[in-house]
Amino acid sequence: MIIAVDAAGGDFYPANPIEGGLLALTENPDLQIIFVGPESMVRDELSKHTYDEQRVHVQDAPEIIGMEDSPSSAVKNKRNSSITIGIGMHKAGKCHAFVSAGNTGALLAASIFILGKLEGVSRPTIAAYYPTLKGFRLLVDAGANLELKPEMAVQFAKMAQVYSQAIMGIESPKVGLMNVGEEDEKGTENTKEIHSALKSLEGFIGNVEGRDIFPAKADVFITDGMVGNILLKFGESIPDALFKMVHSAFSQVQLDEKEIKNVQTVLKTALNPFNYENVGGLPFLGVNGVSIVGHGGSSALAIKNMIKAAVDCVESDINGKIVASLN
Amino acid sequence: MIIAVDAAGGDFYPANPIEGGLLALTENPDLQIIFVGPESMVRDELSKHTYDEQRVHVQDAPEIIGMEDSPSSAVKNKRNSSITIGIGMHKAGKCHAFVSAGNTGALLAASIFILGKLEGVSRPTIAAYYPTLKGFRLLVDAGANLELKPEMAVQFAKMAQVYSQAIMGIESPKVGLMNVGEEDEKGTENTKEIHSALKSLEGFIGNVEGRDIFPAKADVFITDGMVGNILLKFGESIPDALFKMVHSAFSQVQLDEKEIKNVQTVLKTALNPFNYENVGGLPFLGVNGVSIVGHGGSSALAIKNMIKAAVDCVESDINGKIVASLN
Repeated sequence: MIIAVDAAGGDFYPANPIEGGLLALTENPDLQIIFVGPESMVRDELSKHTYDEQRVHVQDAPEIIGMEDSPSSAVKNKRNSSITIGIGMHKAGKCHAFVSAGNTGALLAASIFILGKLEGVSRPTIAAYYPTLKGFRLLVDAGANLELKPEMAVQFAKMAQVYSQAIMGIESPKVGLMNVGEEDEKGTENTKEIHSALKSLEGFIGNVEGRDIFPAKADVFITDGMVGNILLKFGESIPDALFKMVHSAFSQVQLDEKEIKNVQTVLKTALNPFNYENVGGLPFLGVNGVSIVGHGGSSALAIKNMIKAAVDCVESDINGKIVASLN
Repeated sequence: MIIAVDAAGGDFYPANPIEGGLLALTENPDLQIIFVGPESMVRDELSKHTYDEQRVHVQDAPEIIGMEDSPSSAVKNKRNSSITIGIGMHKAGKCHAFVSAGNTGALLAASIFILGKLEGVSRPTIAAYYPTLKGFRLLVDAGANLELKPEMAVQFAKMAQVYSQAIMGIESPKVGLMNVGEEDEKGTENTKEIHSALKSLEGFIGNVEGRDIFPAKADVFITDGMVGNILLKFGESIPDALFKMVHSAFSQVQLDEKEIKNVQTVLKTALNPFNYENVGGLPFLGVNGVSIVGHGGSSALAIKNMIKAAVDCVESDINGKIVASLN
């Protein structure tokens, strides 16, 4: 198994992608990694580590796509970036998957333009892992498709069900449609049409509300990319906000140093469900390949887990299963 | 000042509305309360308390609108409910405001049908208090208008600015448009049009994202009722989810009883920003009157604070200020 890793993506490149890639190698003896990025930068960073040289390769990609670059123009104009070269290698069969903590829009655009769509897929989607009291569940779409149409919603739901089952180990994934109320007739005309279209889907449990996310009333929460992206970013901001709220609470509650430390330990443990490092990245579902994007702030551990998710996708033939479920 | 209180609304009527109303009387010597609901039920509950009988009135309203009743049919068919009678009394000038912890949709429908709209308002809106690190801020629309148009967004923003300033004491309220990115060109065609329309508004700071809510990057977060309602209900579910996460953390971190109690005290204090009791209810902005709805689970304290918010709205002539800001 060969996985290409974007060595020039995210807020902490090249250190974190390279450390993460090497961690993945120690965990999986059948793995080879191709680091894609400016060659001298990658080799400099690699020289700080010891590793099995037989299993580590470097592909030069001198251009850098920044986090703020416009996705489609970056893909068109920076043909020698790690994202375009990495996805191009995947298209050419030189690796089984590509993972990046870089510009999400650019990776999505490159994945759709270069890899193309799976048979029967009208629009690929970004599925986001969302923290719940039962562990991570999927929120789909997380920002790739700001408007949702009924047939898209059905495809997104089916693809997310396949992913939940094959990669997340959820046996019979339940699908809920994010809405303002539980009753069938709630929502906009468009939401009602989506609801009708989803009715015949196995596992569809109807409308779900904002309060149903944390208890994981559904395993797959279907929504448009506007709601999904706002919820995703809001959710990511919860742990930091809570730590700040707890910090101000310390001034109101009399505690000694040891007690403060206890509270912080409990809180850190309690907020583990929010720890994206454990899942690493967000899969693009519906593209003809395996392409995973991670949080810009991805740690080495997060990168390692993105690589693991990519390996799981390849080994479980996720795309074959998606095509079978759609056709 | 006379405030009518729905004695037959919410999950805990008549106990909480009546206790809350009587609490408000002790706090504000210039206040009179009219409890609206089935007369014998109200009088039975009142008999459990001692209070100044000169300042407490009862208006019989034998019908009950349940939390699950369809709003418009409830208002049309249950003409003797506390909501329709209470709003009718407000329309007739028999009280200065009406507050209820009952069916939000029914109260909104009754407010619009019976009180009508303020001069120049195209659509009334529900503004939700949202917890942030700087205290509550407004999220508008919270579910009354599932689709947002540019001219509505501008009106909602202006009305929320007036409310933030007059009632919440925020001097120059900043307005942000909820979106998937900060750049002007982000979002759907509709979002871009709304963005353009808001550009000339004083205090508009541009697009904001999900991660900008907790730091209160804006004082007024403008969004459609679908996003607003999902975020509102999600936000309300955070404290309970966190207590559950902390509870499971206790099994992983070795703490004695006293230490566990410390953590719970800190957490409870830390989560105070989420305590809706302090603000009581959500104001309807743009109706020709003062009508405030509270959480179904409102405590007596929450009801008392809803009444205080209603008094503030009347005393500050919030509606005169809204009309002036729109015209």
